[in-house]
Amino acid sequence: MPQIRFEDLKAEFKRVLTDRGCEEDIAELSARLIAETSLDGVYSHGVNRFSRVVDYIDKGYIHPNARPTKVDGIGSLERWDAHLGLGNVTAKLAMDRAIALAKQQGIGCVALKNANHWLRGGTYGLQAADAGCVGICWTNTLPNMPAWGAKDRRIGNNPFVVAIPRAGGHVIVDAAMSQFSYGHMDGARRRGEPLSVPGGYDDSGDLSTDPEAISRTGRVLPIGFWKGSALSVVLDLVATVLAGGRSTFRVGQLGGDEYEICQVLIAIDAQGIAGDAFLSQAVGEVLADLKASDPVDPARAVRFPGEKGPELRKRNLQQGIPVDDGIWAKITSL
Amino acid sequence: MPQIRFEDLKAEFKRVLTDRGCEEDIAELSARLIAETSLDGVYSHGVNRFSRVVDYIDKGYIHPNARPTKVDGIGSLERWDAHLGLGNVTAKLAMDRAIALAKQQGIGCVALKNANHWLRGGTYGLQAADAGCVGICWTNTLPNMPAWGAKDRRIGNNPFVVAIPRAGGHVIVDAAMSQFSYGHMDGARRRGEPLSVPGGYDDSGDLSTDPEAISRTGRVLPIGFWKGSALSVVLDLVATVLAGGRSTFRVGQLGGDEYEICQVLIAIDAQGIAGDAFLSQAVGEVLADLKASDPVDPARAVRFPGEKGPELRKRNLQQGIPVDDGIWAKITSL
Repeated sequence: MPQIRFEDLKAEFKRVLTDRGCEEDIAELSARLIAETSLDGVYSHGVNRFSRVVDYIDKGYIHPNARPTKVDGIGSLERWDAHLGLGNVTAKLAMDRAIALAKQQGIGCVALKNANHWLRGGTYGLQAADAGCVGICWTNTLPNMPAWGAKDRRIGNNPFVVAIPRAGGHVIVDAAMSQFSYGHMDGARRRGEPLSVPGGYDDSGDLSTDPEAISRTGRVLPIGFWKGSALSVVLDLVATVLAGGRSTFRVGQLGGDEYEICQVLIAIDAQGIAGDAFLSQAVGEVLADLKASDPVDPARAVRFPGEKGPELRKRNLQQGIPVDDGIWAKITSL
Repeated sequence: MPQIRFEDLKAEFKRVLTDRGCEEDIAELSARLIAETSLDGVYSHGVNRFSRVVDYIDKGYIHPNARPTKVDGIGSLERWDAHLGLGNVTAKLAMDRAIALAKQQGIGCVALKNANHWLRGGTYGLQAADAGCVGICWTNTLPNMPAWGAKDRRIGNNPFVVAIPRAGGHVIVDAAMSQFSYGHMDGARRRGEPLSVPGGYDDSGDLSTDPEAISRTGRVLPIGFWKGSALSVVLDLVATVLAGGRSTFRVGQLGGDEYEICQVLIAIDAQGIAGDAFLSQAVGEVLADLKASDPVDPARAVRFPGEKGPELRKRNLQQGIPVDDGIWAKITSL
C-alpha cells in the first residue's frame, strides 16, 4: 500500500479541486481538511471518500465555489445557508462563526441548511477545541436506519460530535447513532470478517454480527437499541428546526443521494469560563482515573476518547499516509 | 395498588418537605415537579424516589432551603452554584435562567455545580419546550458503570436529555448512557424476568440479559458498547469544566453517596428562530413519516420519543397515580 506524504496528498486533492473550477482558497481549505482527516487515521472520511466528493461536484450536487451566508439570527444563535458548497468548507466556516460568537457571548450556535456531507464530523469539534472551546456538533443524513421496532429505513445515523480542549490532544467523540458505519460494515464484509458486536438484524429478524446478512435486510442497529433510535430522531429535528432546512425525511425525497442536509455547530468558551488551570487539571485527573481502570484484557489498557488520534497523526506524518492502491490510482486519474 | 390523585400526592410531598423545614415556595415547587413526574408515568424518578430525597435531607446532603446563585458568566453562558439545594428545584431554576438567556440571545447555557440528583431529567427538557425552546441538558453522576474495556466502575451513566417543542405533546428523549437504569434492572430481578436485550456482563465475561448475574459483576453495559462509554466521558468532562465542580471521578471520592454533582442546562429559542408555522410543520411531518414505518411486529406501531407521556398523564389525571402500597405507606409515615 503506498504511503503518501501529507503535503503530497493535500496537493493532489487541491489539484483535482482546482481542475474542477474551485477557487484557490476554497480548494486549499478543503484539501487541507481532507488530508488532515487522513493524517489522523480516519481514512473512511478522508482520502477514501474524496472521489465521491468529486463525483458530487460533477453531478452538480456540490457547488464548489458556493460560500455560506447568514440568513437570520437572534444574538448568539444564527442560521446560515451553505448554498450546497463543499461540505467540509461550509461546516468549517460555520464553526469559525460559532467560535467567534462564543468568544463574545460565551456560547455560539450556527445552524446550517442546504449543506453537503461534512466528511469527518470530528474536524469541527477539534477546531472548536483548538480555540479553547467545547465543540458540540451534529448533522442529519439520508434515511439510512430503521427506527426502533421498524423494518424500513426512515431515520438517519446522524453523527454526533463532542470535543473538549486538552493540551497534548483533545478529547473527542465522533459517533454515528448506528452501531457501525456502512464503511466499516463494507470493509468487514470484503474481508469476510464478523463484526465485533451485533450490528443489525438478519433475514430471520435475529441480531447478527454478519455484515453480509445485515446488508441484505438493511436493518442496521441503532446504538443502545431504542435509545439511539430516539436520539437520532431528536438530533434530526433540532437540526431541521434550527436551520430551517430539510429533515432526514425530506432528504430522502431527493432521489437517494445525500445533499441539502442540515448541521448544527455549537462552541462554548470553556477556556474563558474555566480558566486554563482548572481546565487542564479537571480533564487530566478524569482521564488519569479512566486510564487506571482494571482492564478486561490485561494486554489492552482502557483508552480515552480521541487518545489514538495524536499517535496516528505522528506516525502518518513520519511514515506517510497509507492509501489503498486502487483509491490512489483513482484520485490521480481524476 | 392505591391510585392517588395528583393533588393529594403533591400535597403529601409538600407536607413532608415542609415538616423538614422547607420554605413554602420551595416545598411547593419541588412537590409539584415530583408529582408531575409521577403523573407522566416516570414513577422511578418521581414518587418511588421521594423517600431517598428525604433521607438525603436528613443526612445533610440536601440543604432544602438553599437557592442557586450565579458565580460567573460570559454573555449567554453562566456558572451557578446550587449550594446543595433540592435537585429538582435548582435544576428547574437553572433552566428558567437558560430560557431567559435564550429569549434574549437565542441560546442560553447554565452550568450548575454542587447540585443534587435532579430526579427526572426530562422535566427540564419539557420545561424548555413549554417555553418554545429546544432543551438540551445532562447531569453527571456517581461512578456507576465501567468504561469500555474495563471491569471496574469509573464513569457515570450521565443521563442526556433533548426536547423539541410540539403542540399536543413535546418530543423528548431522556436517556442514560447505560443500556438500563439500575431501577429497571432491580425491578426485573425482583420479578425474576430477563432484560429485553443484553444489559451487562456475567461472571464469565459474557453479555447477559440476567439482571441478577449483571448485579454480581457490576459490569453494566453502555449504550452502543464503546460509543456510550465515550459519550459518558465527554458529557462528564463538559459538565465539570463548564460548572467548575466535581467530575464523576471526584463525586466518587465522597464515600458512595451521590451529591455535589454538575449539570448543564441549555435552551435554544426554536420558536423565535423557526416561527410557529415551520416548527409545527417540520416536526409534524417527520413524526408522521416515522409513524408510517413498517413495524417488525404488526401489532406494535412505531412510537416517537415522548409519545407515551401525554397518554399516561391523561390516564393518571383521571384514574389517579398508581403508587406501590409499601412506598405510599412509607411516604405517609415520613
